[in-house]
Amino acid sequence: MTTTTTAEDTAQSSPGVTAPLGFRASGVTAGLKASGRPDLALVVNDGPSHVGAAVFTSNRVVGHPVTWSRQAVADGVVHAVVLNSGGANVCTGPDGFLDVHRTAETVGAALGISPGDVVVASTGLIGERLPIDTLLAGVGPACAALSETGGPAAAGAIMTTDTVPKTADLVVQADQGTWRVGGMAKGAGMLAPGLATMLCVITTDAVVDAALADEALRTATRQTFDRVDSDGCMSTSDTVVLLASGASGVAPDPAGFVAGITAVAAQLARQLVADAEGATHDIAITVTGAQTQDAALAVARAVARSNLFKAAIYGNDPNWGRILASVGTVPQEVAAFEPDELDVSINGVMICRAGGAHAPRTDVDLAGQREVHVLIDLHAGTEVVTLWTNDLTHAYVSENSEYST
Amino acid sequence: MTTTTTAEDTAQSSPGVTAPLGFRASGVTAGLKASGRPDLALVVNDGPSHVGAAVFTSNRVVGHPVTWSRQAVADGVVHAVVLNSGGANVCTGPDGFLDVHRTAETVGAALGISPGDVVVASTGLIGERLPIDTLLAGVGPACAALSETGGPAAAGAIMTTDTVPKTADLVVQADQGTWRVGGMAKGAGMLAPGLATMLCVITTDAVVDAALADEALRTATRQTFDRVDSDGCMSTSDTVVLLASGASGVAPDPAGFVAGITAVAAQLARQLVADAEGATHDIAITVTGAQTQDAALAVARAVARSNLFKAAIYGNDPNWGRILASVGTVPQEVAAFEPDELDVSINGVMICRAGGAHAPRTDVDLAGQREVHVLIDLHAGTEVVTLWTNDLTHAYVSENSEYST
Repeated sequence: MTTTTTAEDTAQSSPGVTAPLGFRASGVTAGLKASGRPDLALVVNDGPSHVGAAVFTSNRVVGHPVTWSRQAVADGVVHAVVLNSGGANVCTGPDGFLDVHRTAETVGAALGISPGDVVVASTGLIGERLPIDTLLAGVGPACAALSETGGPAAAGAIMTTDTVPKTADLVVQADQGTWRVGGMAKGAGMLAPGLATMLCVITTDAVVDAALADEALRTATRQTFDRVDSDGCMSTSDTVVLLASGASGVAPDPAGFVAGITAVAAQLARQLVADAEGATHDIAITVTGAQTQDAALAVARAVARSNLFKAAIYGNDPNWGRILASVGTVPQEVAAFEPDELDVSINGVMICRAGGAHAPRTDVDLAGQREVHVLIDLHAGTEVVTLWTNDLTHAYVSENSEYST
Repeated sequence: MTTTTTAEDTAQSSPGVTAPLGFRASGVTAGLKASGRPDLALVVNDGPSHVGAAVFTSNRVVGHPVTWSRQAVADGVVHAVVLNSGGANVCTGPDGFLDVHRTAETVGAALGISPGDVVVASTGLIGERLPIDTLLAGVGPACAALSETGGPAAAGAIMTTDTVPKTADLVVQADQGTWRVGGMAKGAGMLAPGLATMLCVITTDAVVDAALADEALRTATRQTFDRVDSDGCMSTSDTVVLLASGASGVAPDPAGFVAGITAVAAQLARQLVADAEGATHDIAITVTGAQTQDAALAVARAVARSNLFKAAIYGNDPNWGRILASVGTVPQEVAAFEPDELDVSINGVMICRAGGAHAPRTDVDLAGQREVHVLIDLHAGTEVVTLWTNDLTHAYVSENSEYST
């Protein structure tokens, strides 16, 4: 099997969700955002098959679009996804749910499909009704703008505090034939535990059934979005949808399909980290020598959520004491390790060995390095996990204190 | 029973640990801090009884002083506590433990007591050896400076990034007679879960046995220090010691004794919050209507650890959506509630009712209000818990990125 991936640095020029055959997309300005920027995106699966799968936030407080979309995707069939920025439609009472229903009905009528096959996703402020008439008036123009090259426009219309659109694609040349994956995502704050993005749509022209689509999407999110923890805050609206058109006519082997979906999800997840609110460093925390994957992840997450550690990295300070203090908060029953066996390296320099100081801190130069690689060896097993986070900066505080989001 | 508490606003003029009879204390400059500020404190129990109890961090990575002091206090007898700032003596290898041992021996020899009755507590940077000769050379002067009015000096010598010393005292006039409690604490960052202060010494001249001292201290810390969560980061060195001299000759009723210790611990905990690194708002999160205390505490802690919520409060933004998003991360098995029954009030204004918007956000004016009171009603039971935290500010980022601590 030969896999060809678009270069990661061409993300902004990737066709995104319209990279695979059988998809059209658009992004238009409905008028939901005060800024006048595009705020309504549509992704349509033209088939021949209309397989859909989705995973959602594990927050107990969820937006009405999540409630609707869980139901819409339950039968494994999705024809279209409509996404808006400019309002999350969360905690808006029964009228907020009616707003979602009307949105799906309007999109369904315009496209000649059942409202029950329309997934709805919204992002923005919690607790305020959407200007629903404004949104519905945008559906016509969004349908009119649908195009087989509309992926980038759709990716632009779902941005909120994102500074760049996030798109990715992949062409897989396998023994069975050539098939494609595309995707777009948005998310900068509230990247979180249960599921780490706000909104993401992944498309493929592979021929798959709903069961494989669901399995592939769950596997991919577990390995990618779930391993991004920007600020420990879980959204009420996280939605990742996978649409499969079957338009390539190629049925990949299941393992190859899972790998392809995972590869695109990984690219999008990495782009989310790179655009995390106010970050100056992208931090990969790799925990090795763990007894289990869960143990490694728990240790990595404890470090990723330490404001003291994250502020130190912002200050280009390889403060391994704060790393050990975070590791030590993980209970024995969750992760086995002996404190006096812990090794910590930062960007390849082992500054802590066997729980004590080793190479001088000054050997680690973080200034001007966007990527920081922290390696923690628990010496308790063979499992390895990498979790991505970012530093805690003045810009993060500014973005999240000066504006309601 | 009549209880007379010193006013909270006189904290800086409280005699602190020397308020009760039978104690001497001192604070001197040994030379551990580059600033030349006092850095070595000594608290001595002159008896007639020498009851001691202590609670320590639940971090698995602990300082050598914690390892030593756990052993020293195990028999319920403590004659003296020596505390230093300028270095935490954590992750310093076997030599670091010898440094603690030598410190206790030097203090023991100077005071004519067993080293095994000396509790040692250290605070400062992790991972660097203390300049032990400098520290030991300070023990003589610290002993020479011991005084029955030395409480404030001792409180000053344990400060690190604290901007003010923390002291408190209480005189209890009970049916059995008059007895006293005094205390000092330090801590500004790393206020945390398992135990929320860095270092704290509480003294009393009540006549109590080791079992009651231990019970009272554990009850008090659970209700006070454990309900402060400034930045979610657990220290490796948290130590709270209780010393009872019996010098009043008064044996209080157990419930009254627990209440007295708790009152002083509460004052000190409140002072810690008020001096949290870089904070501009002290935030009391009260969760009511919970099925259990643990459920209420879990919900309060989820909100207290939301950087998005804490940044919003810094911006004087009563962003209840971020509160609900945090509440929703608590699993059903931990805290029962229905998302559409949640009420949230901030400073007495109910801005969220039944999971949706209620009073206008603009009715909540946080500007210029140091204290912010968040009330979350789960409508699931009758238990109530208050947890204190603070906002996430530019000053916090500065303090924790510009200096190694």
